[in-house]
Amino acid sequence: MNVLSEEHKLTIKAIREFVDQYVRPKARSIDKGEYPRQLLRQLGKMNLLASTLPQDVGGAGADTLTHILIVEELARASPSLATIMEVQSSMLAENLYHNGNKVHREEVVPKLASGEAVGAFTLSEPCCGSDAAAIVTRAEKRGGEWVINGTKTWITSGLYADYFLLFARTGSLEARHKAITAFLLRRSNCIETTPIEVMGVRGTGTAEVKLNDCRAGDDDVVGEVNGGWKIAMWGINMGRLNVGTIGLGIAEEAFYEAYSYAKKRVAFGKTIAEFQVIQHYLAEMYARVEMLRSFIYSTAKMKDSGDPNFPLYAQVAKLMGSRTAVDVVRLAVQIQGGYGYSKDSHLEMLYRDAKATEIYEGANEIILNTIYKFMREKIA
Amino acid sequence: MNVLSEEHKLTIKAIREFVDQYVRPKARSIDKGEYPRQLLRQLGKMNLLASTLPQDVGGAGADTLTHILIVEELARASPSLATIMEVQSSMLAENLYHNGNKVHREEVVPKLASGEAVGAFTLSEPCCGSDAAAIVTRAEKRGGEWVINGTKTWITSGLYADYFLLFARTGSLEARHKAITAFLLRRSNCIETTPIEVMGVRGTGTAEVKLNDCRAGDDDVVGEVNGGWKIAMWGINMGRLNVGTIGLGIAEEAFYEAYSYAKKRVAFGKTIAEFQVIQHYLAEMYARVEMLRSFIYSTAKMKDSGDPNFPLYAQVAKLMGSRTAVDVVRLAVQIQGGYGYSKDSHLEMLYRDAKATEIYEGANEIILNTIYKFMREKIA
Amino acid sequence: MNVLSEEHKLTIKAIREFVDQYVRPKARSIDKGEYPRQLLRQLGKMNLLASTLPQDVGGAGADTLTHILIVEELARASPSLATIMEVQSSMLAENLYHNGNKVHREEVVPKLASGEAVGAFTLSEPCCGSDAAAIVTRAEKRGGEWVINGTKTWITSGLYADYFLLFARTGSLEARHKAITAFLLRRSNCIETTPIEVMGVRGTGTAEVKLNDCRAGDDDVVGEVNGGWKIAMWGINMGRLNVGTIGLGIAEEAFYEAYSYAKKRVAFGKTIAEFQVIQHYLAEMYARVEMLRSFIYSTAKMKDSGDPNFPLYAQVAKLMGSRTAVDVVRLAVQIQGGYGYSKDSHLEMLYRDAKATEIYEGANEIILNTIYKFMREKIA
Amino acid sequence: MNVLSEEHKLTIKAIREFVDQYVRPKARSIDKGEYPRQLLRQLGKMNLLASTLPQDVGGAGADTLTHILIVEELARASPSLATIMEVQSSMLAENLYHNGNKVHREEVVPKLASGEAVGAFTLSEPCCGSDAAAIVTRAEKRGGEWVINGTKTWITSGLYADYFLLFARTGSLEARHKAITAFLLRRSNCIETTPIEVMGVRGTGTAEVKLNDCRAGDDDVVGEVNGGWKIAMWGINMGRLNVGTIGLGIAEEAFYEAYSYAKKRVAFGKTIAEFQVIQHYLAEMYARVEMLRSFIYSTAKMKDSGDPNFPLYAQVAKLMGSRTAVDVVRLAVQIQGGYGYSKDSHLEMLYRDAKATEIYEGANEIILNTIYKFMREKIA
Repeated sequence: MNVLSEEHKLTIKAIREFVDQYVRPKARSIDKGEYPRQLLRQLGKMNLLASTLPQDVGGAGADTLTHILIVEELARASPSLATIMEVQSSMLAENLYHNGNKVHREEVVPKLASGEAVGAFTLSEPCCGSDAAAIVTRAEKRGGEWVINGTKTWITSGLYADYFLLFARTGSLEARHKAITAFLLRRSNCIETTPIEVMGVRGTGTAEVKLNDCRAGDDDVVGEVNGGWKIAMWGINMGRLNVGTIGLGIAEEAFYEAYSYAKKRVAFGKTIAEFQVIQHYLAEMYARVEMLRSFIYSTAKMKDSGDPNFPLYAQVAKLMGSRTAVDVVRLAVQIQGGYGYSKDSHLEMLYRDAKATEIYEGANEIILNTIYKFMREKIA
Repeated sequence: MNVLSEEHKLTIKAIREFVDQYVRPKARSIDKGEYPRQLLRQLGKMNLLASTLPQDVGGAGADTLTHILIVEELARASPSLATIMEVQSSMLAENLYHNGNKVHREEVVPKLASGEAVGAFTLSEPCCGSDAAAIVTRAEKRGGEWVINGTKTWITSGLYADYFLLFARTGSLEARHKAITAFLLRRSNCIETTPIEVMGVRGTGTAEVKLNDCRAGDDDVVGEVNGGWKIAMWGINMGRLNVGTIGLGIAEEAFYEAYSYAKKRVAFGKTIAEFQVIQHYLAEMYARVEMLRSFIYSTAKMKDSGDPNFPLYAQVAKLMGSRTAVDVVRLAVQIQGGYGYSKDSHLEMLYRDAKATEIYEGANEIILNTIYKFMREKIA
Repeated sequence: MNVLSEEHKLTIKAIREFVDQYVRPKARSIDKGEYPRQLLRQLGKMNLLASTLPQDVGGAGADTLTHILIVEELARASPSLATIMEVQSSMLAENLYHNGNKVHREEVVPKLASGEAVGAFTLSEPCCGSDAAAIVTRAEKRGGEWVINGTKTWITSGLYADYFLLFARTGSLEARHKAITAFLLRRSNCIETTPIEVMGVRGTGTAEVKLNDCRAGDDDVVGEVNGGWKIAMWGINMGRLNVGTIGLGIAEEAFYEAYSYAKKRVAFGKTIAEFQVIQHYLAEMYARVEMLRSFIYSTAKMKDSGDPNFPLYAQVAKLMGSRTAVDVVRLAVQIQGGYGYSKDSHLEMLYRDAKATEIYEGANEIILNTIYKFMREKIA
Repeated sequence: MNVLSEEHKLTIKAIREFVDQYVRPKARSIDKGEYPRQLLRQLGKMNLLASTLPQDVGGAGADTLTHILIVEELARASPSLATIMEVQSSMLAENLYHNGNKVHREEVVPKLASGEAVGAFTLSEPCCGSDAAAIVTRAEKRGGEWVINGTKTWITSGLYADYFLLFARTGSLEARHKAITAFLLRRSNCIETTPIEVMGVRGTGTAEVKLNDCRAGDDDVVGEVNGGWKIAMWGINMGRLNVGTIGLGIAEEAFYEAYSYAKKRVAFGKTIAEFQVIQHYLAEMYARVEMLRSFIYSTAKMKDSGDPNFPLYAQVAKLMGSRTAVDVVRLAVQIQGGYGYSKDSHLEMLYRDAKATEIYEGANEIILNTIYKFMREKIA
């Protein structure tokens, strides 16, 4: 891959060492429900948690491709950690850095970038997961204060978050996305969180979040009143590239797991890697992973060059990354057979985790709607 | 479906009532690891556990299609229970009834058919899951007794079995399947069982089974010495039709779950069942389920008519049933979105369970090998 | 397949002999554009053209499965001939026999069943191929006569038809399918036909048909005035099962062509049938063909038993038959490699012909719409 | 796509103008069998036929990506012309320039680069299309001269070639690829060519080529005696990237054809582009095209940077490009329905042409074998 500079290769080396030493040993306990708060702090210390931010707020001044390489490597070992990290960095820290006010930028961002504090992107609601413009959580101005009530769901890190980047309706339902405002709330008693049990990408503290008369000042608004949709989209577009990247990491890891197993496992008097059908499975998996990698890396570069088509390609990355992950892990488990289906195999976890990528940050059906819409605008 | 007689329809009605009342409320606790021993006994009492056996040994004198309809309905609610039941009935009770001696037939079969005793088909070994003819567990004749040593793995009901239909090598490794003998062993101290943790089809008591100097008499041989392969195949062919049927049950249930959700769930101002893409997903799922059902039922009828092509079609049923299950549940989860990925949805369990059908009773790659072999013989 | 009676097997034998002797030698000249009128007459003489009609009008009093077996065998050698035949028999002769008046039944049907005359189902229009209820060809009553004007397209046998079963609007456009009437027109000067050049299923005389002030009497109405939709649907439901069957014939033939080639063709020192990947391709093709066959035959039996779900299953047969055909021929061509892509191979023609089945008698997207609609009605 | 420089964009503009003015009007007559010799000359005049060669031999000193952009645009209008051009440039002109002797480089290359002469890559044989190392055409040294006898097949431009880059065995069959030598032969009476009729990519003068006692001197050897395999691979690796690119061009064109049709075609009261299912088809097609494009362009850049993994990625490009082409055109034809199946639509031709890309320059099964082999070497 000639898009990788020497610096990128150093990042890969550093993150792989970190992953091997700290993340892999923890992957199964995270899968069992343990939120990896300590790993977030370690990433923060290495300036790899929100690497694209400047160093003075805890980043590494890196490009988007660097960030993507980190997400990819984390996802190979623990898609859960990669998910927590991408929300914390792209959807919270970077978003606040670029779109928040001075306090957000100078006080909150460094805490998020260092992993000292945990942040949650708080948009989805039970009414309307796929139709985010229809949210009903309300923020009402009463006596100079915003009073917020409503229920959010599928909130990654919701159980443990210190900060909630929360989207609430500040106008009519009919105005849809034009009457939504973003707030940054600190955890307090008005916020009630309940865990949601899921199949995979576990240990992410995913929660239902109830807001009972939460108070916010004008300083807690991120961006403009009724301008929250822009903030949400800023996070979501990057989030979709991140999810595509998690798909890449899962597929890649599944390929290596299956290949390494096939070279050792003997059946019918030879290693199964010597069977032509297994070779074609592996070649197929490899081909799909490399094609996906090329696309993801190239899309990351579009972000930095300010290419106006970045949002379109980020959707494609999400669609293709998630699909590749599910397809490739399915084949990989076949190669391991019963072992791949058991809790002893890393693939067992990846099989469950992969399916999340087809759903979260926008179910693929929503992604296809969006690709069509963006494509039409681009071509017209 | 014009292949169903009135009697078949009555069976469906009866088993559905049983499933709704007793199985569905237990499905999640089985998924959490509880072996459904009581449900086996209840099925036994209704003569639905090994329905194709004569009534005097605890069956219902039913045809194979009746048995298949029962497996299908059980699988809709609990693929785990369906798996335990198909092993107990087809691979143990019926197998012993047709191939065992008088004691097997008159003493053991009734206990298995009534659910009083649990049986395990004990063939696979760590060396060679897919290549069963290469097993290394040995039975050696010492002073008029068989002494058996070895390790078996992926044994459904292994943790709880009272009887093990065990396959051991009684000749050279080179003789492969021609030097394998079947034994019926009662659980005793020489048998050590260790649970295997798996992704889905949980609660089946799947175990590794160690045999330490287990003793068996000539009366414990099922069939002929060195004739065990025939016994194994008897079980496996029927087992593959059963797994195809479990796939059918899973896919069918997933369709109904998704359809019923789509009619209620609202997004963008209408139920999601009103979106053309969702309608096409549902039509696709329905079409695949009905085509599979037609094939499975027709294959069940081939068994009873003594059609020599039954083993070939049983492989096709396994291949297509498992693939349909995985594909259809994947789509179904998309329709439910985040909910389908959560532990609150029946689909979450079916997604994990479905994958097993591509692997157990022969990974699909082995099935394709076998289809080719049988097809070539048929056409030649 | 235990659904086949001895009589069915005799039909297969007879039609195969006919196909080998007369159809296969003609398949390529039909593909080059020669309309097989003589073959229609020969089929008529054997009472195999419209076999389900009573013998006194030229049928064989056979069941629907017999008809399906004939379509299947014709399609293996010449999907073009199978297409002409299914339109002539199911959509014209049988339709008129069941829904026409005495003259239709006693004078026209025997001519169609014998192959003496050619008939065309004349529904589609340039405006609205997929949306047949929107047709704009008008029949207006002027002085006791119907005067018909309009343009039809994609009319199989249009170039050579002696009779046109024509659908025209006899009321408002808004009334859609409730204001359409069926007419039986003899070819005359008012009818202008222009050939349409297509990729495959060639030699079927497919044409655009212009009606310029065509006159018809009340006796020429088939069924009721404004009751044409029922006549159209009668033909189309059976037509869809027929197209599914053509898909079956194509897929089956492609399998045998590929298998027979693989057993002879040598590469890397052995026949390519000895490569595991080729074996899996063949096993996959075989499995899909047999599953499809089971479904098609079972659906044919539903027709005769008056099963109200026949129209629903006929749609599924169309969808799955066409998809199987395209997928299986695609694999088959891979097995033959360059040879399969050349005009010397039967597969070259089948590859082009197969694609038609995804489109004609309703593009598969329309079929999915219809499956959803019928399924919803059935389940509700 | 940020990999495109301003110069690349100018190339695209120039080639598009050329294609619109000269190629599109000719596409159907090429499909009917007319070899586009004049278009080759025009491309030569613009220095776009073998653009990566230096200007002094008729190239444009361009990078590989420029060449790929030209192939892509030609393929959109005429995959036949793109095929002729890629053979002439990559497999002949460039190959001879880099691997031939002074005469090849100074006399033959300029004629090929200008389109004045036509060249054919003459490797495949009836014995062993996929197993090129097994060719049996022999070159034997008799009295200081090479005498060549044998039969070649599937030779693009074979009917019209002035030069044949021919591979012949100069040692034992057992030595396989180590006993093959490349020769450059001028057309003469000893060479007999017979057309091969194919489904698509027609008008390329594809031929069987018989060599009857053809004489060659030592100067006609390209590279080393018994070193022909290196020359063949040089051509084939680049040829595989080219075929992947032809797949890209076909898929891209099919997308635009379908999209533009969907925006105009009305059904059920609205344009079909307003149906969600059609939108998802289009989004799917677009996503696959863009992902493929990204991979192809990135692989082209690997060639120029001397990346040792270029041959591996060129195989992946071939596999994925061809598969994308077949899948995307299949969907595109569905959107056009009957029209897409008729000779009036560009898609009808692309559907036939696309299938060639799964077969020529190595059937995809050979490609998967090769990907596995190269991948294993890379990872080891």
